[in-house]
Amino acid sequence: MVKYREDVDAVLRALADPTRRAVVERLAKGPAIVSALGEPFAMTLPALMQHLRILEEAGIVTSQKVGRSRTVSLRPGALDVLHLWLDGQRTPAERQADRLGIHLSRTTPHPPKETP
Amino acid sequence: MVKYREDVDAVLRALADPTRRAVVERLAKGPAIVSALGEPFAMTLPALMQHLRILEEAGIVTSQKVGRSRTVSLRPGALDVLHLWLDGQRTPAERQADRLGIHLSRTTPHPPKETP
Repeated sequence: MVKYREDVDAVLRALADPTRRAVVERLAKGPAIVSALGEPFAMTLPALMQHLRILEEAGIVTSQKVGRSRTVSLRPGALDVLHLWLDGQRTPAERQADRLGIHLSRTTPHPPKETP
Repeated sequence: MVKYREDVDAVLRALADPTRRAVVERLAKGPAIVSALGEPFAMTLPALMQHLRILEEAGIVTSQKVGRSRTVSLRPGALDVLHLWLDGQRTPAERQADRLGIHLSRTTPHPPKETP
């Protein structure tokens, strides 16, 4: 439980910064080398590395040195802890709507395929 | 698009603080009056009000004065913008797994109900 709270805290603190969010958005498309990651931002390499360190410590990204360049990737399932926390904050009315939706999806037959 | 980015930013900044997250967790169970909300925390009323102001400005909570006390509620759908942002950060492999899951849920017949 303590671990879960610490993970939620680290992920939210990491994502509260717009530059780090932009890095995550870029990496969702695929891995990138550090120099390419920095291109859209007017910042020094040490500043970018500091952002990457915070993302890595929060378990959101991983990096790997290949030859002379370092490749950064989004860690699969890295944001699951935040999905989990968000699901816990649904109000009773939202939970009721969820249950209704699940019930309808199970009991409503799929419409027949249209014939051309 | 700018509005969306601003909303994501405000929600994540608001949730990056553990006290504000604890307030959200409490309000997910139902509305509460300000004095009751403050009870679990060793903080002054002005400090609590400041946290509530940040949550209200981020559109996460609403408050209403009834008689002499102020009631705070979680705004339904307040965290939808964060769900939306998170969904956008799924990696290509995760998207493929999602599509497979949707396909299986559509093509796999439900098991027959067990007879007692």
